[in-house]
Amino acid sequence: MAKYNSILTNAPEGGVSYEKFELDISGFEVNLKPLLTGICGTDRGIVYGSLPFAYNPHGSSRLVLGHESLCRVTDASSNNFGIKKGDYVIPMVRRPGKCLNCLAGRSDNCSDGDKHEAGITGLHGFMREEFGDSAEYLVKVPDPEIGDVAVLTEPLKNVCKAFEVFDTVSRKSIFTDSAGTYHEKKSVVVGTGSEAFLFALKSIDYGFQTYITNRHGLDDVKDEFVQKTGMNFYDYSSSVEPEKDGFDLAIDTSGDPSTIFRFLRKLNNNGILVLFGTNGKAPPANLDGSDIDHIIERNIAVIGSVDGARIHYEKALQDLTRWRYQYGSALQSMITDKVSPEDTQIFTKKPSDEIKTVIDWS
Amino acid sequence: MAKYNSILTNAPEGGVSYEKFELDISGFEVNLKPLLTGICGTDRGIVYGSLPFAYNPHGSSRLVLGHESLCRVTDASSNNFGIKKGDYVIPMVRRPGKCLNCLAGRSDNCSDGDKHEAGITGLHGFMREEFGDSAEYLVKVPDPEIGDVAVLTEPLKNVCKAFEVFDTVSRKSIFTDSAGTYHEKKSVVVGTGSEAFLFALKSIDYGFQTYITNRHGLDDVKDEFVQKTGMNFYDYSSSVEPEKDGFDLAIDTSGDPSTIFRFLRKLNNNGILVLFGTNGKAPPANLDGSDIDHIIERNIAVIGSVDGARIHYEKALQDLTRWRYQYGSALQSMITDKVSPEDTQIFTKKPSDEIKTVIDWS
Amino acid sequence: MAKYNSILTNAPEGGVSYEKFELDISGFEVNLKPLLTGICGTDRGIVYGSLPFAYNPHGSSRLVLGHESLCRVTDASSNNFGIKKGDYVIPMVRRPGKCLNCLAGRSDNCSDGDKHEAGITGLHGFMREEFGDSAEYLVKVPDPEIGDVAVLTEPLKNVCKAFEVFDTVSRKSIFTDSAGTYHEKKSVVVGTGSEAFLFALKSIDYGFQTYITNRHGLDDVKDEFVQKTGMNFYDYSSSVEPEKDGFDLAIDTSGDPSTIFRFLRKLNNNGILVLFGTNGKAPPANLDGSDIDHIIERNIAVIGSVDGARIHYEKALQDLTRWRYQYGSALQSMITDKVSPEDTQIFTKKPSDEIKTVIDWS
Amino acid sequence: MAKYNSILTNAPEGGVSYEKFELDISGFEVNLKPLLTGICGTDRGIVYGSLPFAYNPHGSSRLVLGHESLCRVTDASSNNFGIKKGDYVIPMVRRPGKCLNCLAGRSDNCSDGDKHEAGITGLHGFMREEFGDSAEYLVKVPDPEIGDVAVLTEPLKNVCKAFEVFDTVSRKSIFTDSAGTYHEKKSVVVGTGSEAFLFALKSIDYGFQTYITNRHGLDDVKDEFVQKTGMNFYDYSSSVEPEKDGFDLAIDTSGDPSTIFRFLRKLNNNGILVLFGTNGKAPPANLDGSDIDHIIERNIAVIGSVDGARIHYEKALQDLTRWRYQYGSALQSMITDKVSPEDTQIFTKKPSDEIKTVIDWS
Repeated sequence: MAKYNSILTNAPEGGVSYEKFELDISGFEVNLKPLLTGICGTDRGIVYGSLPFAYNPHGSSRLVLGHESLCRVTDASSNNFGIKKGDYVIPMVRRPGKCLNCLAGRSDNCSDGDKHEAGITGLHGFMREEFGDSAEYLVKVPDPEIGDVAVLTEPLKNVCKAFEVFDTVSRKSIFTDSAGTYHEKKSVVVGTGSEAFLFALKSIDYGFQTYITNRHGLDDVKDEFVQKTGMNFYDYSSSVEPEKDGFDLAIDTSGDPSTIFRFLRKLNNNGILVLFGTNGKAPPANLDGSDIDHIIERNIAVIGSVDGARIHYEKALQDLTRWRYQYGSALQSMITDKVSPEDTQIFTKKPSDEIKTVIDWS
Repeated sequence: MAKYNSILTNAPEGGVSYEKFELDISGFEVNLKPLLTGICGTDRGIVYGSLPFAYNPHGSSRLVLGHESLCRVTDASSNNFGIKKGDYVIPMVRRPGKCLNCLAGRSDNCSDGDKHEAGITGLHGFMREEFGDSAEYLVKVPDPEIGDVAVLTEPLKNVCKAFEVFDTVSRKSIFTDSAGTYHEKKSVVVGTGSEAFLFALKSIDYGFQTYITNRHGLDDVKDEFVQKTGMNFYDYSSSVEPEKDGFDLAIDTSGDPSTIFRFLRKLNNNGILVLFGTNGKAPPANLDGSDIDHIIERNIAVIGSVDGARIHYEKALQDLTRWRYQYGSALQSMITDKVSPEDTQIFTKKPSDEIKTVIDWS
Repeated sequence: MAKYNSILTNAPEGGVSYEKFELDISGFEVNLKPLLTGICGTDRGIVYGSLPFAYNPHGSSRLVLGHESLCRVTDASSNNFGIKKGDYVIPMVRRPGKCLNCLAGRSDNCSDGDKHEAGITGLHGFMREEFGDSAEYLVKVPDPEIGDVAVLTEPLKNVCKAFEVFDTVSRKSIFTDSAGTYHEKKSVVVGTGSEAFLFALKSIDYGFQTYITNRHGLDDVKDEFVQKTGMNFYDYSSSVEPEKDGFDLAIDTSGDPSTIFRFLRKLNNNGILVLFGTNGKAPPANLDGSDIDHIIERNIAVIGSVDGARIHYEKALQDLTRWRYQYGSALQSMITDKVSPEDTQIFTKKPSDEIKTVIDWS
Repeated sequence: MAKYNSILTNAPEGGVSYEKFELDISGFEVNLKPLLTGICGTDRGIVYGSLPFAYNPHGSSRLVLGHESLCRVTDASSNNFGIKKGDYVIPMVRRPGKCLNCLAGRSDNCSDGDKHEAGITGLHGFMREEFGDSAEYLVKVPDPEIGDVAVLTEPLKNVCKAFEVFDTVSRKSIFTDSAGTYHEKKSVVVGTGSEAFLFALKSIDYGFQTYITNRHGLDDVKDEFVQKTGMNFYDYSSSVEPEKDGFDLAIDTSGDPSTIFRFLRKLNNNGILVLFGTNGKAPPANLDGSDIDHIIERNIAVIGSVDGARIHYEKALQDLTRWRYQYGSALQSMITDKVSPEDTQIFTKKPSDEIKTVIDWS
């Protein structure tokens, strides 16, 4: 046991502090030093005390925050995963329980809820100067030259898993166009945060005519990102709606029922709505009988998707490698700010033009 | 052109009458005489004028009702489908358009909505003393000894299609139990009409612990049916709820948002909710942010499923053949009444203990 | 420990005897009495000493034969599977190891070979007057009225598993016809033994134009079976070949390379060849470069399929229930002879007109 | 009609010449100028007259060779595919017929063989100074900075299609390891030509422990490529075999039955053998009963895979973009030589160290 500089909360009550905290990081196969840790809505939700499912590790009065991280290996005993000192790695968030999905390496699909999530539910996270982990939960960054954007691996792995689900579900009918592609299909991503942008980039890779939308305009940083990556942005609160023909795929990152239902009603036959964003405090909204009718008559599927497995971390790293070169500085511009660990006000004051703020531990 | 006794409506305004109506039934490969035609909620909805999507055939002032039917072939020219005089057949409801799904024989998954439905949307139905059809839209009853229950083929084909969709969607994770079966999984079918009972019989075939539920008790006929087929009925409006552990599959036949959401909230991880029943007039109900959360954190899928293709009519006939012997008179007891075509009040006055009322044309 | 009348071999050397053999059948959840046990090529192969993979249970000098069985429960302690005294059950053949497929209830797809098969590999079989088993390896016969044909469950479960594999593999392209069915597709089953007939019945259920073939004609019993079930038989050694248009699905039960390759060469584009029959002593046959070409240019798949899981035993029982009524006495005619346990010459002298010979233990 | 410098053969007789040939390239949406055209075994097979399935376009005495190409658009009328003057594009090889797979944009899975292949079967290829095409058969190179390696798109699209088939077929059991990945699985690619290397790069992307093998050693260029990309090469004719534990995936590019069977016999349970390479002149080899046994008892699948659809060209371009940066000059080193169109001896004299020779038309 020793004390390490850590960003702490007390889940689910909330609060945030940067201080020395006593942790036992001995006995692990791999010792790690975070380089960058990303901040997302979940971190802020925990700090605000608005995520009732968050909890401290058993017997601990505090929870170390952080589940998005890029780390360097400072030491490693021999392991089956080829993790060596000096490697850059992404630690995985979920740790498996004993259900069939967990046994098969798919704790993202945990059947009984008996898993843990670093920095969220019962397991200390990665926002600390140093920690230890098992090699089996570390994903190696094969091309360290992609640099800082590697910190986007964790949020992007969610996107990769959601599209895996889309691939499975969309097989229930012929979803593709007469060229066997998605070019005649339209997708819309609801939201303009980092996760929304990652979903839209993936949608572009699939070949969808990709729209991204919000109920307000874009600031300059986001506007430039949208321009350079070939997305189509529109403000859905304005009167001009480009999507009058309907969408074949809608992906929500808002978690807001009223917004979700707005886009559910715009889905074409065989359309798929992916729910990803959560906002437990979002106000209720209505569906009526004719909405249910719409879902049925059009063979629509609504799919919740959470987390991702090792395979999705790996695919995310492959996508980032390609995007890094394909989009150049546009991809890097997603990291809108780097702050130091002591700047804990970042958890309570979200910068207005933030895509992704990261904490720099180096 | 000649006049034929027909049950008519004027879609979408509604109304119902039994009268001679001028129809051209010449020029078809196959001539048919309905033996039995089933009545379902859609027929009654059209008669009440509450289904705005229904419409008369182009240029016609009336629509012949009826999409559930068992017919005998009275004459047939040579055809590629082996349909011969004397055969018992089920005519298909949907007729394809030109989209990819329709071209592949899956008008049930029509991508562009450019299809027709006999007795519902732009095509005369089967409630008439005689009609003609193409052999390609007729499904032969291989075992005429199953008798009257063959009229359940059309409603059952919807169930077979919905379970095909379930099969595809449930592959997104390991859904089955540690024996590779569904025995440790629980399903609930919401509703106690004929379609609900058919869904529940299919669920039992899969091996699910199968519950069927409604917000009131069962009359004697239904109670006996439930007992003899091994379903578990409960009245969800009562305080005692057996489903406290949650369901893995929920199937709604009510079309009522408030009821649907009730069971959506009871779904386990990787749970699937199939929406089948429609009730365009059902009042709105709310979902809030925590409900969206529930869908996401549990990887839940909500799937609308409509109609079925030829393959599902064929599977339905196989199921009915087996059930006819397995459940004996219990299956036959689903046909609670036979009325004559002139008894058109059956469309406006649903018998209180009805499972399936059929019109006897013989 | 006590002595029980058993049919014994010494695997893999071979031989067969009916005698009292000391076995410990205490400590099991369920006590069973076989009613019928089927004899198949594997049993004869073990007796002849031609199956090198067969072996006695650890520490035992003998192996009780028998893996096809219909049993009655003579006693059962309380169990999670609802198996009660008086039930008719089918005991499963394979018992799982610890690989992922085994853990998921799919020992039929065992990844590491660390499983056992009753009556074949390291586990005593069912040809004995009495035995004990765990409830989890017993599949209840839901409709005991199907009678003797229930003994066909074990061979039929192999067919159900093979068609499950077909369902998965055939999704790699559009396999079905323009009606979304298999009616314009042709299948051929190579062989005219019991397993071949079960494959052909399943193929008919799918809607395939179903051929069954061998290099000689049929005796009267088989000829009548073929007539009554609607299969098309042809003798492929004769000059007239009906299959000149090629097959879309071929299923081999011969295990003979030369025969297999003959039908591989007749496969259409996207065709699938299922290998099921084994004959370790079958002589070699050739494929050349143009055969490989044929497989590739036509996107052909060749799939080995062995065993089946609990879900396939259950589906087999459902199929048998339907076929029992659909085909009437024709299905029963598959059981061509019943012999008593002491008639062990049945293992070395196969009756010329045998479809399935069973041993009657009652 | 005008005359254009073209590389010609007379299929299926063979021969090769570079000369002016009269072609009508008017009336096309898009005019193109090849920059690079790749040479592969198929081209050489046609020139040698050893591919009996090749044929000239209807009414033509010659066939323009070439199906691997990178082109620049010299002119384009308005089209639905956004192809504009100055774009770099890859023209597709197969052109659809009228079967269901072709209608769905999947002529690579053509059901009836009624398709054409540019430079191979009835359609002029791309080895000419200029030609015209429909925009729907052109795939845009999104990132022209990948440069010359874009000419590898056509061979790589075959790999992408084959892995799509692998994805579908491998779902028949749990194929992945206990981390839900392929890291504990071994693949082997048979052959060391350009197609083999592309298969191996894709296998590495999946996470397989990837072996590449041949019956002789590697020259320096290939050896360096193998080193830099992380493949494991071994000479299978030598006594030391690294694959003693067996392979889970084997991919053949040799088309040689004897070699194919060697690796078929090394497949693990649930193993998959992908056949891609064709060599119509390859001598026959034997399989015997115990080999068939092996396929069955292990649930092995052998899958022929040919061609690829638009979606695979697009994925190939994404892979090339990533590999271009990930492997740097190693990827470029796959293009071992550039020759001019008049050097037609390249078709009959394969350079000993060739990975991919391309013809430079600029």
